[in-house]
Amino acid sequence: MEMNDLVIVSVDDHVIEPPDMFRQHMPAHLLDKAPKLIRIREGDGWEFEGARIPNFGLNAVVGRPLDEYGFEPASYDDIRKGTWDIRARIDDMNANGILGSICFPTFPTFAGTLFLAAKDKALAKIVISAYNDWHVHGWCGQAPGRFIPLAILPLWDIQACVDEARRVARLGVRTISFLDNPTSKGLPSIHSGHWDPLWAVMEEEGMVISCHIGSGAAAPYPSGDAPIDAWIVNMPMYIANAATEWLFSPVFKKFPRLKIALSEGGIGWVPYWLERADFTYKHHRAWTHANFGDMKPSELFARNFITCFIDDQFGLKNTDALNADLITYECDYPHSDTLWPAAPEALWASIKHLPRETIDKITHGNAMREFRYDPFPILGRENCTVGALRARARHVDTRPVAGLGGVNPSNAEGRQVTAGEVAKLFAA
Amino acid sequence: MEMNDLVIVSVDDHVIEPPDMFRQHMPAHLLDKAPKLIRIREGDGWEFEGARIPNFGLNAVVGRPLDEYGFEPASYDDIRKGTWDIRARIDDMNANGILGSICFPTFPTFAGTLFLAAKDKALAKIVISAYNDWHVHGWCGQAPGRFIPLAILPLWDIQACVDEARRVARLGVRTISFLDNPTSKGLPSIHSGHWDPLWAVMEEEGMVISCHIGSGAAAPYPSGDAPIDAWIVNMPMYIANAATEWLFSPVFKKFPRLKIALSEGGIGWVPYWLERADFTYKHHRAWTHANFGDMKPSELFARNFITCFIDDQFGLKNTDALNADLITYECDYPHSDTLWPAAPEALWASIKHLPRETIDKITHGNAMREFRYDPFPILGRENCTVGALRARARHVDTRPVAGLGGVNPSNAEGRQVTAGEVAKLFAA
Repeated sequence: MEMNDLVIVSVDDHVIEPPDMFRQHMPAHLLDKAPKLIRIREGDGWEFEGARIPNFGLNAVVGRPLDEYGFEPASYDDIRKGTWDIRARIDDMNANGILGSICFPTFPTFAGTLFLAAKDKALAKIVISAYNDWHVHGWCGQAPGRFIPLAILPLWDIQACVDEARRVARLGVRTISFLDNPTSKGLPSIHSGHWDPLWAVMEEEGMVISCHIGSGAAAPYPSGDAPIDAWIVNMPMYIANAATEWLFSPVFKKFPRLKIALSEGGIGWVPYWLERADFTYKHHRAWTHANFGDMKPSELFARNFITCFIDDQFGLKNTDALNADLITYECDYPHSDTLWPAAPEALWASIKHLPRETIDKITHGNAMREFRYDPFPILGRENCTVGALRARARHVDTRPVAGLGGVNPSNAEGRQVTAGEVAKLFAA
Repeated sequence: MEMNDLVIVSVDDHVIEPPDMFRQHMPAHLLDKAPKLIRIREGDGWEFEGARIPNFGLNAVVGRPLDEYGFEPASYDDIRKGTWDIRARIDDMNANGILGSICFPTFPTFAGTLFLAAKDKALAKIVISAYNDWHVHGWCGQAPGRFIPLAILPLWDIQACVDEARRVARLGVRTISFLDNPTSKGLPSIHSGHWDPLWAVMEEEGMVISCHIGSGAAAPYPSGDAPIDAWIVNMPMYIANAATEWLFSPVFKKFPRLKIALSEGGIGWVPYWLERADFTYKHHRAWTHANFGDMKPSELFARNFITCFIDDQFGLKNTDALNADLITYECDYPHSDTLWPAAPEALWASIKHLPRETIDKITHGNAMREFRYDPFPILGRENCTVGALRARARHVDTRPVAGLGGVNPSNAEGRQVTAGEVAKLFAA
């Protein structure tokens, strides 16, 4: 086996919604009430119910030279076309040897929490359904066998969540993007039983909860004058705080076949954390009354939690202390941690020491099984490898493009960029 | 080598201040203004400047049966004598095979931040010095060779910090308890240069920064109705957020011989986090302008950061991915994670696979070197092993004592104790 033989499925990428996304998917008489693209200062942004969402790029910097990775793109002119155009996206996936992808939303936020603030909730429900329809038909449907469809829900209304989950399941959606901690947005907790009807549908339909870092409780910005690097380092592992809640919640005891994916959470810290969870259970359960029946917390984790990584050599050296049957890969295109267009090179270097069977599980087998994604009958397995995909992408120019523009906290004099500067930029 | 041959130094334990602690250490004419013990409701507490500090026990539950580990002791009658009485403490250390110990404060908080709120700051400075004098003479000094003295500082006044650090260095203090993130208490950040005069003195005097979990920014309580277990699991690793700030701060670039100990932080997550720090540095430095000179972040960590663990099998299986020269052990007596009186049994089980040289470093050698603690000439090495210490503790009754009392969030009906209940208890 060599790098070109890898088959790679990414369970965490992002789509920048294209300008015309709602045109075909909103009822015609409501189209003028759908979110629409407007000009904000020097850039493009969305407007919905009079509110403006300027930073639509969310650090969509793929394809720039590394010294321009701090830019916050302000318009479509500032970003690589593959971020929002499906043909260009497929080219970029091919150039990077990526067979399949789960694409999280951008302007609605990862889990669609933007619409929690909607004044007209009936309208917002229709917008969410239109969003999902676009995602299924206008994005994933344009490239059969290349995407695992994901949906967002009208989170303020549990019955509407259930109805939309059922509806999109019939459209082939395999996973719902859900907040890491709903109480962070004022919603009922995962311990309350409020969400049980949704979990019941998702378990029945075989849909995975995709829980992206920063979808609810983001890692706290450190001291304002701290290097921004500190925040970047901390982001993935911060999901441990929420993961522990899910682990000790009633959710997976009530719905033992339901799965949750910790999107962008990394894997190398997980064995420590599972040992800590088991220690806590053993040492404290007599007074806390935590109850895992005949299991340990680490065993429930191995049954219900899907992990993923971008680049995680330590984690891949310790697959014996994780559950190799639920480790998956992610590319994070087009965000700044992505290794596009050289993701296969980094992945191969960190995984080649493992047995082929384990490599196949981690690179694609686990994702295909858990998200019920079966591209081989559509595309032919021989066309799904890194080598085969890249052979079809010889026309794709992957060289870094400088000077695309956008808002930039970086500086010519080489001063350390601080967390406060970046926070201000995102708040602008 | 066998368990009884271990020599164990704990770099993180806690002392409950005894009622008469200030009597000999405050200037006589100010004694009535020192914090004093009062009766609060059904328990004992401290009073200072009219403010009351009721929960003096901070979960000092050592010696109880596990089903009473949720109790928050309310009075000295509720806690094991070894928590506050030096003779009983030495007995308890001997019974647990612990040679040496660093004891963090309780009522002033781990890093003495209680006094930030003092109205009379001149008085508060005198109280802090009296506290440190008691710690050196009234606690550590009563058992030569058994403690590594620690001090707290008047954090609101950098010159006073410098003066007190110099003063206690001459008294033999080897480490200063400092907040994980001073901005969490409204103090200047570690990036600002404000603390540099203190770091200069500490580097010169060879004093370690001891940075205890929860000393500034504690792990956030999860959803109010989350099992309290979730919070307990998350507490240690949450220090990663602050540790990243220290790692990327200018502190250790300016003061390369200064050391920081991540007290109660655990070790098993560290290799993942260091890899993530190196990835971030390599991938983002071109725009963030982070600059480690000819080092990587992981190399600076290996030079300046002391780690410690209570029970961490995964970490001890991966000492090759940490820096075994700066891993230390902690017992956490008398808090609820402690394994007293069976700490050596757990430690031996997790460490015995390592070469003797590495075991000796981790159990005591590293702590002795870094904290300049040299008990062997005082006590004789042959008297410092687990076996020798326990032989002197045959009279110590280590059987769990039930029914000591205190405030208890647990319940007879076996309902899960929630984070909200415990938060309310601590806020009461």
